[in-house]
Amino acid sequence: MNRPSGRAADALRTVILEPNVARHAEGSCRIRMGNTEVLCTASIESRVPSFLRGTGQGWVTAEYGMLPRATHTRSDREAARGKQSGRTQEIQRLIGRSLRAVTDLKAMGEMSITVDCDVLTADGGTRCASITGGWVALHLAFRHAMRMNVLSTVPLRDQVAAVSCGIWQGAPVLDLDYDEDSKAQTDANFVLTGKGGMVEVQGTAEGEPFSEAELLALLRLARLGTDELFRRQRAAVGIG
Amino acid sequence: MNRPSGRAADALRTVILEPNVARHAEGSCRIRMGNTEVLCTASIESRVPSFLRGTGQGWVTAEYGMLPRATHTRSDREAARGKQSGRTQEIQRLIGRSLRAVTDLKAMGEMSITVDCDVLTADGGTRCASITGGWVALHLAFRHAMRMNVLSTVPLRDQVAAVSCGIWQGAPVLDLDYDEDSKAQTDANFVLTGKGGMVEVQGTAEGEPFSEAELLALLRLARLGTDELFRRQRAAVGIG
Amino acid sequence: MNRPSGRAADALRTVILEPNVARHAEGSCRIRMGNTEVLCTASIESRVPSFLRGTGQGWVTAEYGMLPRATHTRSDREAARGKQSGRTQEIQRLIGRSLRAVTDLKAMGEMSITVDCDVLTADGGTRCASITGGWVALHLAFRHAMRMNVLSTVPLRDQVAAVSCGIWQGAPVLDLDYDEDSKAQTDANFVLTGKGGMVEVQGTAEGEPFSEAELLALLRLARLGTDELFRRQRAAVGIG
Amino acid sequence: MNRPSGRAADALRTVILEPNVARHAEGSCRIRMGNTEVLCTASIESRVPSFLRGTGQGWVTAEYGMLPRATHTRSDREAARGKQSGRTQEIQRLIGRSLRAVTDLKAMGEMSITVDCDVLTADGGTRCASITGGWVALHLAFRHAMRMNVLSTVPLRDQVAAVSCGIWQGAPVLDLDYDEDSKAQTDANFVLTGKGGMVEVQGTAEGEPFSEAELLALLRLARLGTDELFRRQRAAVGIG
Amino acid sequence: MNRPSGRAADALRTVILEPNVARHAEGSCRIRMGNTEVLCTASIESRVPSFLRGTGQGWVTAEYGMLPRATHTRSDREAARGKQSGRTQEIQRLIGRSLRAVTDLKAMGEMSITVDCDVLTADGGTRCASITGGWVALHLAFRHAMRMNVLSTVPLRDQVAAVSCGIWQGAPVLDLDYDEDSKAQTDANFVLTGKGGMVEVQGTAEGEPFSEAELLALLRLARLGTDELFRRQRAAVGIG
Amino acid sequence: MNRPSGRAADALRTVILEPNVARHAEGSCRIRMGNTEVLCTASIESRVPSFLRGTGQGWVTAEYGMLPRATHTRSDREAARGKQSGRTQEIQRLIGRSLRAVTDLKAMGEMSITVDCDVLTADGGTRCASITGGWVALHLAFRHAMRMNVLSTVPLRDQVAAVSCGIWQGAPVLDLDYDEDSKAQTDANFVLTGKGGMVEVQGTAEGEPFSEAELLALLRLARLGTDELFRRQRAAVGIG
Repeated sequence: MNRPSGRAADALRTVILEPNVARHAEGSCRIRMGNTEVLCTASIESRVPSFLRGTGQGWVTAEYGMLPRATHTRSDREAARGKQSGRTQEIQRLIGRSLRAVTDLKAMGEMSITVDCDVLTADGGTRCASITGGWVALHLAFRHAMRMNVLSTVPLRDQVAAVSCGIWQGAPVLDLDYDEDSKAQTDANFVLTGKGGMVEVQGTAEGEPFSEAELLALLRLARLGTDELFRRQRAAVGIG
Repeated sequence: MNRPSGRAADALRTVILEPNVARHAEGSCRIRMGNTEVLCTASIESRVPSFLRGTGQGWVTAEYGMLPRATHTRSDREAARGKQSGRTQEIQRLIGRSLRAVTDLKAMGEMSITVDCDVLTADGGTRCASITGGWVALHLAFRHAMRMNVLSTVPLRDQVAAVSCGIWQGAPVLDLDYDEDSKAQTDANFVLTGKGGMVEVQGTAEGEPFSEAELLALLRLARLGTDELFRRQRAAVGIG
Repeated sequence: MNRPSGRAADALRTVILEPNVARHAEGSCRIRMGNTEVLCTASIESRVPSFLRGTGQGWVTAEYGMLPRATHTRSDREAARGKQSGRTQEIQRLIGRSLRAVTDLKAMGEMSITVDCDVLTADGGTRCASITGGWVALHLAFRHAMRMNVLSTVPLRDQVAAVSCGIWQGAPVLDLDYDEDSKAQTDANFVLTGKGGMVEVQGTAEGEPFSEAELLALLRLARLGTDELFRRQRAAVGIG
Repeated sequence: MNRPSGRAADALRTVILEPNVARHAEGSCRIRMGNTEVLCTASIESRVPSFLRGTGQGWVTAEYGMLPRATHTRSDREAARGKQSGRTQEIQRLIGRSLRAVTDLKAMGEMSITVDCDVLTADGGTRCASITGGWVALHLAFRHAMRMNVLSTVPLRDQVAAVSCGIWQGAPVLDLDYDEDSKAQTDANFVLTGKGGMVEVQGTAEGEPFSEAELLALLRLARLGTDELFRRQRAAVGIG
Repeated sequence: MNRPSGRAADALRTVILEPNVARHAEGSCRIRMGNTEVLCTASIESRVPSFLRGTGQGWVTAEYGMLPRATHTRSDREAARGKQSGRTQEIQRLIGRSLRAVTDLKAMGEMSITVDCDVLTADGGTRCASITGGWVALHLAFRHAMRMNVLSTVPLRDQVAAVSCGIWQGAPVLDLDYDEDSKAQTDANFVLTGKGGMVEVQGTAEGEPFSEAELLALLRLARLGTDELFRRQRAAVGIG
Repeated sequence: MNRPSGRAADALRTVILEPNVARHAEGSCRIRMGNTEVLCTASIESRVPSFLRGTGQGWVTAEYGMLPRATHTRSDREAARGKQSGRTQEIQRLIGRSLRAVTDLKAMGEMSITVDCDVLTADGGTRCASITGGWVALHLAFRHAMRMNVLSTVPLRDQVAAVSCGIWQGAPVLDLDYDEDSKAQTDANFVLTGKGGMVEVQGTAEGEPFSEAELLALLRLARLGTDELFRRQRAAVGIG
């Protein structure tokens, strides 16, 4: 099997996590997975959505965007079109759910954090990179709140990272780039935690349906990939 | 383990598929899964989206809606608010992908079918019911096209149906109703084909992350459930 | 004179009013007028619009929608287009005014009721059916409020029902279906009360202007029709 | 009976129709009915809506707007809010239907005329004034098309004008101003033709339902009022 | 040099300022600059934008619109299109800034004034006419507040007026009409104060870039023009 | 005079222009002016707006956006709000006009170039940086078209760059950062060409009106600043 990228079936793309890149944000991280580049910023606000007011509990939400020329051909600017696409909304809901899954919302107290994930260059895997980089931005924002004496500890129960896998020419491969993604028969995103659990699994057959064995093979690759991403996250935030 | 619904862990709710309920649509099906009730209609148009023009290939797409008082408390009418929610868009994209996965778009020729899934009463599992009922409406629309001598065969390669499963008080259970869904630790939707393949898997941890073993237990229940749904679909369209 | 429908000039279509069809709504009614089918639900909320806050007075409003394939050819989903058509807005304003005309808003106290009228199948006369069925849903919602000890009486001063009439091939006929409506020279909607008053009259010449004599002939038919509808409403809510 | 305006029950307000007031429009008329002032312009375009293309038939449509401070207290600018209210849409549909009712669309040939009715000052009766003044603007636009040798005759079969009437303190009165309108028990708009026919009747009970006798009394007043308006229209366009 | 308008290089068009033309507004002015005609109304509200609440300070803002047939060919109604164009927003921001520049917002106290500038006929220079006429409307609204004993003085520090100038066939000319504007190489708007200061300068090269000398020549003409406009403003409000 | 930034009155911030930073765009440039950072990409499309079709002439347009956390406190995402602010629209119109002023649209032939300017970090002067960096992206896109043999020469008649100046504590200073901008009495943006002409001048008094002498002093500083920016542009594209 020869992947278009030339990588081994179980090889991640080059991963670079740069913390604290955004001058104004409480927490931030630029993540590069090969040619995919996402800027993640975490912004703290003292008010919470109305359904949480008075509960003592916090909230984490995410927004996702893509610069018009992050892609091979220019795509319309969503602000100019006047609405976010279904794809954008689906992705930002996934990022928000994934980050909340490892956050102790009660321990946050009544504050909100919005994690903005803006894709500067797209080459496949932007939603996964957003989750992985978003966790770093979120962690750093909590650390900022500790320095401000708003929190006494980082209210994160675990790490969370994501990676896409796919069936390419019949074989399971890790971390699809755009070229591989557009040709894969099956495409799956795994959102996994540092302690080994799954918080989201999304598998889609692009052509033929996939089998249970294939799903499990993809999951095994995803664990390999996210283990490496967890190490990079810890390095980026300076823990462990 | 006692489910709120009193059902056995592997028991579907009462399923009723009523074909041809919509006077004007080329194909239609009202599906009830317990108290969830969805009206699915399939509408044929002779033009295709611009990216398919001249390719000789057809298209299947889906739209999803919920009547304002399908739910426990009234929700805003999306037409009045001026936009569809992220949830609505995510669901209708899923329904469309699932139906396309078993459709031979080339064999359709240049026609479009829109499958509208409108929830009359919601009690959990509306997206899964939409897929299961939507397949029946789509099949019947293709049969209509055969009677009109537009097609000579039904361009469907397989059946597709969907069911949700969840971890409830630590145990895997089949076909969550609203009450169970809101208390489940993990919630997964499986879109499976008649021949045993998977076209979509979406698992989400609401609380604790879930394990591989749990995912597989849920998948096993889903196969049981969809096997029953496939029998009902065949009866509804009068095949097999 | 032979109407396309074969009905006598003063004959209503088959009328069926099914109360309490919506599981979650405080009041509901499915109304069928021949092939036209509308689901009416009445939802109680404890807050009122800002212009009524603190006045001790309640409010009744209506929203109207049509499923995309309620019609002969599929129409765009208003939620997807991002706005309600002028026709939709005009109809829901009429339904709201008609229901408020027989409601004792002061006796309601500060609560709001939204009557949603969703057309499942359209074959002419959907706005009139919405008013007739909407009154039943509204009555049942008030009865629900009595069972909840929120109200001690049903704050409705009268019944209200509506029917369309038209001039067809020079002759006045009652309760136009779609086919007749599209060929009528004049089309009029009458919203009448149980005690014989008029709350709305809307007459429109589609071709030649109409005369006073014609208007009065249509009104006479409308009284015949609504008298029958009032009997059905009373039967549906179990009074009189 | 003493009307707030001091007018006799059957007296119109002071009516002024000024033709050709808009420098750029093919036809125009500023109409004043007492303190209500509406600027009507008719704009000719050579293309027709898609449903008429190739039919040889023309189209007349209307748009209605109100300057933000035409009213006692400033109302939001619809362009800034991003949508037209239900009231606006209802009114502009009425104006368009009324003007089309007296236009020979076939004789127009394939051209469109848009009649814009913009309320500069509002004191009740703006929709009626728009119809009355709109007819003058439309007539003048057709005359412009004759001067341009596009038409050889004015394709209008009749005049059309409108006036509101109401029941005020139990008595029928003609041409309600804002103050009277807000206190009337019943409010009706009559769109009548020069030859004595009705093209639209809209009666609404604001409080008590109204009777057939009251409707007829209002109609009689409306005929008096529109007869005067027809004389003014003819003078404004220089015919008869 | 022969201007299309036949005017001398330093000649304004005929200027007419009619104060108090809008029946309901607290202050109003209809301004005509040749064939350009703008209706300016100033509306007082007792609440201020949230960022000013509790500061004791007031606010002045502006909205701008153009009737669809103010122009040579009909332009779309912004309310119907569902959004204001970039040009509209740019102009209303300019008007608001210009009026605030001469208003003592602290002395106003916590009230808001919205100045609506609606173009009835457009022949070039509508934004400048809006500023000049808007100042009159604003002044008159403040005087209204004095009569109501809400203010004891007019909180305006100075007059403000605006005029456009341009380079036409190489020569600087004052107060461009539409025909001249569309052919000018350079077009500049000057917003000047009665005491001789500049509050806004906007110069744009339509063809060749312009020089410092040209900018200064245009400014000199603008001063001539606004001096005349200041006299007219004082006459319109009855001061000086 | 001590500027908050500590810079001399006539000192630009540190300027860095990085060409070819966007993997997919035909031309691109990241510009940093101190802490302001804007990513400019130029995208070529073969079709032109409808008003240019068949004229043989091309078009250059610009869009502007700001990442939500480019600013000190997070601002709403325009795509989520569903519309671009007036400020955004004003800025992107300015960028487009400025770039077109130096482009030979006829020599381009029928192609369009969209220059997207997305602000990654905002510290004042983002519109000016967008113009300066946008010119580099545009030049590089034209060079790309030459390599593709679509053009034989770069159809730019001149360079264009922009810088803001202001009156700070009574003294004119060059290239305001956010902190200085928010305290300046007058703020002006100059869009100048390599050959010394002006294509846009926009001066605004924030407090006191400004004088002609002040405007000229600001212009002199702007020339100093843009001369340096022109050198940097030439270096970035490798000419002169």
